[in-house]
Amino acid sequence: MPLIEYAEAPAEVRAVYDDIKATRGVPDVNNFWKALAVHPPTLARTWDSLKQVMAPGALDPLTKEMLYLAASAAAGCAYCVASHTAAAKAKGMTEAMHGELLAVLGMAAETNRLAESLRVPIDPAFL
Amino acid sequence: MPLIEYAEAPAEVRAVYDDIKATRGVPDVNNFWKALAVHPPTLARTWDSLKQVMAPGALDPLTKEMLYLAASAAAGCAYCVASHTAAAKAKGMTEAMHGELLAVLGMAAETNRLAESLRVPIDPAFL
Amino acid sequence: MPLIEYAEAPAEVRAVYDDIKATRGVPDVNNFWKALAVHPPTLARTWDSLKQVMAPGALDPLTKEMLYLAASAAAGCAYCVASHTAAAKAKGMTEAMHGELLAVLGMAAETNRLAESLRVPIDPAFL
Amino acid sequence: MPLIEYAEAPAEVRAVYDDIKATRGVPDVNNFWKALAVHPPTLARTWDSLKQVMAPGALDPLTKEMLYLAASAAAGCAYCVASHTAAAKAKGMTEAMHGELLAVLGMAAETNRLAESLRVPIDPAFL
Amino acid sequence: MPLIEYAEAPAEVRAVYDDIKATRGVPDVNNFWKALAVHPPTLARTWDSLKQVMAPGALDPLTKEMLYLAASAAAGCAYCVASHTAAAKAKGMTEAMHGELLAVLGMAAETNRLAESLRVPIDPAFL
Amino acid sequence: MPLIEYAEAPAEVRAVYDDIKATRGVPDVNNFWKALAVHPPTLARTWDSLKQVMAPGALDPLTKEMLYLAASAAAGCAYCVASHTAAAKAKGMTEAMHGELLAVLGMAAETNRLAESLRVPIDPAFL
Repeated sequence: MPLIEYAEAPAEVRAVYDDIKATRGVPDVNNFWKALAVHPPTLARTWDSLKQVMAPGALDPLTKEMLYLAASAAAGCAYCVASHTAAAKAKGMTEAMHGELLAVLGMAAETNRLAESLRVPIDPAFL
Repeated sequence: MPLIEYAEAPAEVRAVYDDIKATRGVPDVNNFWKALAVHPPTLARTWDSLKQVMAPGALDPLTKEMLYLAASAAAGCAYCVASHTAAAKAKGMTEAMHGELLAVLGMAAETNRLAESLRVPIDPAFL
Repeated sequence: MPLIEYAEAPAEVRAVYDDIKATRGVPDVNNFWKALAVHPPTLARTWDSLKQVMAPGALDPLTKEMLYLAASAAAGCAYCVASHTAAAKAKGMTEAMHGELLAVLGMAAETNRLAESLRVPIDPAFL
Repeated sequence: MPLIEYAEAPAEVRAVYDDIKATRGVPDVNNFWKALAVHPPTLARTWDSLKQVMAPGALDPLTKEMLYLAASAAAGCAYCVASHTAAAKAKGMTEAMHGELLAVLGMAAETNRLAESLRVPIDPAFL
Repeated sequence: MPLIEYAEAPAEVRAVYDDIKATRGVPDVNNFWKALAVHPPTLARTWDSLKQVMAPGALDPLTKEMLYLAASAAAGCAYCVASHTAAAKAKGMTEAMHGELLAVLGMAAETNRLAESLRVPIDPAFL
Repeated sequence: MPLIEYAEAPAEVRAVYDDIKATRGVPDVNNFWKALAVHPPTLARTWDSLKQVMAPGALDPLTKEMLYLAASAAAGCAYCVASHTAAAKAKGMTEAMHGELLAVLGMAAETNRLAESLRVPIDPAFL
């Protein structure tokens, strides 16, 4: 799959790259965006959504990033684990926090599997 | 699958149920534990692990619970989504926090799928 | 989705049902086959493949059935967990064996998740 | 992600590595453990659990290892498939057994998908 | 989880419901939207994205709907399989097309699992 | 894992390779088949099934190939995404069609996750 660099990108792609760089304060965009640029409407829509979703709100940016990492690890996406581990560290995830996050993910995987293997009925209290 | 109630449980199972109830300050254990009691060694080991992993540490209990929920949703475990949504609410997750968590999970699913569909190479900066 | 019963099934579907019943020594086929009968070529091909794959060979029928159950649980298919748990019990899986199988599945889920979250490089010895 | 070698490991990590090497009769631990050592409590707990779960019991070690492999393949974990394929071969899985295991995993994936796509209702006999 | 009906919905939710009903020519929205309305910004953003993505383009609406169904089945989402099977039928998917789609999904699941279990290296011709 | 080339393959494997090459009009088979040849009965059965399933029918070959790609991407199989992207392009998938397929896959992933996270009840109209 090609990676589309700024220099060769059409104007609509450059506009998205510029907004990513300005929003994040980075000199270049990640490979994810360079790959997604093969379909400019999907690039633009995905970035618009991500910018909205990851903005500070009721949850702080680090918590959002760790949730993103947890979901990416559970989905088994190697690229996503790499990129969101880096992003979470940049937002303040320490070694100790990362270790505990890994422990939670591991236990969740184990108990998810056990619950599905046992076909546990949902407790009335959860409804 | 049978659910093993306290009254009919052998001593080794009762000991685990008692510790869960005391640790969590609840009058009864969830169906997950009652189902898992079909294999007492797995019940005891799983509870011991979970108690360690979910104890307060570098991450606070609510953040851990929301990570658990994120991983459970990504794994598609309906029982686990129900139980950890309830647990996260009990630990302070508001409606607004829940809404933002859902938004992060949705975006993670979308970008995970796109990254895998495009087979994006990992950025050198992430290594 | 409709379930197609023998009485209302076309001849090509009845032929498959008859072969399943004769091969397994059962009076009726499971719902899986009655649902799959909406597309007779897929019904016939799937049964032919399954009959070949599950026949005794280098692995005995119980081991094959437990592997089928392990894979079904990991895929999160509730119907398949229910049907292959029943089938494994019918082939001799005891309560103790079932408990240990669950324990293995749980640990596999946990260590799979950890290995993916840590992006562990494959040991040269495994290649 | 760093791999922590014995020479640079703290005492609590060395103790786990020593127990793995003694239990398995191997000169060094696999990369999985060297990666997991970034969080010593998770390393210790995971090894303790794995040692318990994989010990001989109602299921023999080879059957447990093949179940582990089946679950790892269904979860799509490349590292885990590589390590548990190697482990199963070391415990006696022949080429013929491996071929039949692959065939079962393939059929399970196919019928799991069909059952979910058809939303097959669970047979009363399985309950 | 609550389902938010039109009569009790706030204005921003009603606006989305109205647009869904007008775009699709239906008298009411599906449960998915009524559940998602617990977080109005996610409801609005998701609908905006979906409306863009599912509009006719280089792929016709029925092909898009069948791709959606294929992805939903592979993800094991029962609600999504039910809703997108209904939608695909409404857009012209015949019984025969549905049967062939199921057959493709089953074979994809089987060969995906085999490729991952064998860790097949990517052919140079695909790069 | 070994890849079995034609020159070293036993007769039963060569027969399958010959049929693949003749059916597809290609000079050599893909790595998938060379890997699967470690178990000749699975090679033969899988090819027979695939040939049946992918033959033109109520769905045209390109639609079938795009459905295969959608399912493979949702299953996270990198080899399968690479091979079926190449196959779909060879059958006529344009850049624009590929871009829209990616967009559908991304939205499906997002809405699948949201539906499971919200445990949406199935609408009576879908039953």
